[in-house]
Amino acid sequence: MTSPSAVDGDPATVVACCQLALQVGDLEGNRARADAAIEQAAATGATIVVLPELATSGYAFMDADQARALAEPVPGPSTDHWHELAERLDVTVIGGICEDGGDGALFNTAAVVNRDGVRAIYRKVHLWDREKLVFTPGDQPPPVLDVDGHLVAVMICYDLEFPEWVRLPALAGAQLLCAPANWPDLPRPTGERPAEVVRVQASAAINRMFIAACDRVGPERGVDWVGGSVIVDADGWPLAGGSASTTTQVLTAPCRLNEARDKTISDHNDVITDRRPSLYTSVITQEDAP
Amino acid sequence: MTSPSAVDGDPATVVACCQLALQVGDLEGNRARADAAIEQAAATGATIVVLPELATSGYAFMDADQARALAEPVPGPSTDHWHELAERLDVTVIGGICEDGGDGALFNTAAVVNRDGVRAIYRKVHLWDREKLVFTPGDQPPPVLDVDGHLVAVMICYDLEFPEWVRLPALAGAQLLCAPANWPDLPRPTGERPAEVVRVQASAAINRMFIAACDRVGPERGVDWVGGSVIVDADGWPLAGGSASTTTQVLTAPCRLNEARDKTISDHNDVITDRRPSLYTSVITQEDAP
Repeated sequence: MTSPSAVDGDPATVVACCQLALQVGDLEGNRARADAAIEQAAATGATIVVLPELATSGYAFMDADQARALAEPVPGPSTDHWHELAERLDVTVIGGICEDGGDGALFNTAAVVNRDGVRAIYRKVHLWDREKLVFTPGDQPPPVLDVDGHLVAVMICYDLEFPEWVRLPALAGAQLLCAPANWPDLPRPTGERPAEVVRVQASAAINRMFIAACDRVGPERGVDWVGGSVIVDADGWPLAGGSASTTTQVLTAPCRLNEARDKTISDHNDVITDRRPSLYTSVITQEDAP
Repeated sequence: MTSPSAVDGDPATVVACCQLALQVGDLEGNRARADAAIEQAAATGATIVVLPELATSGYAFMDADQARALAEPVPGPSTDHWHELAERLDVTVIGGICEDGGDGALFNTAAVVNRDGVRAIYRKVHLWDREKLVFTPGDQPPPVLDVDGHLVAVMICYDLEFPEWVRLPALAGAQLLCAPANWPDLPRPTGERPAEVVRVQASAAINRMFIAACDRVGPERGVDWVGGSVIVDADGWPLAGGSASTTTQVLTAPCRLNEARDKTISDHNDVITDRRPSLYTSVITQEDAP
């Protein structure tokens, strides 16, 4: 294992995104692919390992019945399995699960699992497209938890496109936001990064917070995933990934997460204290849409 | 003048950003540079013409006394002059002014001026660096006004980096956000766009709103401006500009602004109604910083 040297008492945390090619319904195959990637990430020194959204079940369900058949409780088989891996490899795994929440409710969930077991779960609040036909939206904010001395937050894919939502963990002190994702390969001008990557860059810089977004690759039942996994620093610049890709890969980047504690960007500016919350009220006074 | 053809009853509106090289204190020279650029913009069919921040006075004040000496009321000499130009050229000018607000207060202001005179002013709410030593921050939201049948909003430079603030005009229906700006040339990785451009792209896409940000070029009393003026569409892709530049230029782009009325991005998603405002409350419950 590599051991990044400490600078100013802040040893770099190696963060990994396991960009996988998964198939809906192939529970065993998906598990094997994730296992191999987690092993590879740990072997290169990663201690925080992010998997895609719905990494256990796959994404492109035919219908809600298929999703239900692939769902599992949390804690449950997948998080038990990640617990074993996390203990043996001494890593924290953050991955997407099709969660059976009981009472017939399915959630698009991310679990944070380390040597102690399931540390936190997050249920996707902003559902994408046909997910609305399958999942119950979450109603809790992104968890922010201490992972080996740094504050780490979790949300999922389309959640990232709501800057009010990304702001919450930043205000809670998160230094790294991990986001399991499944980004479809949408049209974009030649030479441009996937639009989702641009938004991740902006969100990181605006909050001075590292972000690791783990995407998928390849086709799955008619959907092509863009393979845009990216790890960006607190200035919003990619440390790894960030371009469309068609290959399965484990991206890693050493991240000096304490840089995210410093919110100053000039002699007189701080991205958090420069906010004028009392003027922002109408952002939240609009009622939720039905 | 060119006359972009209408599509679906929405003739394109040609928007211009006049990326100028200005000098603090050179009121006459700055006016002449802006005049020439506005004429050039109108000659290429532009009807909405954006100037940089503090386009009248220049930016890099030695101190508050110099700013005070260069300040003027609004309406005042500069907006009267823009009114004449707007009437003659049939354009709307949106430009930055060092405003003497009376009672000793200076504001970093943008004025919207058309054939009818001053239509609106906006006083910068989020002040950058040493501006805090010179200006009183504004306390009013970005104006959103009807410009020839489309809703146009205004804010200034660093305001753009607060997504809560950009959200306000989007929620009010703005189709185009115009932002006079002065972006310093800060370090960035080779091949990357200026970080401010990335944030503009993200803000446009997240809100499905066109954004025209008009920057400066050249050196000014020890400050180098990055020349990153950009006009982006409602998907966040640059229609004109967006890379660092060292040349004075008038960027123009035909913008089908009614595209910004359509907030849908999939069969089941709408970037505005997908918001979950009742869950965002803690974004604004933090008190303003002292």
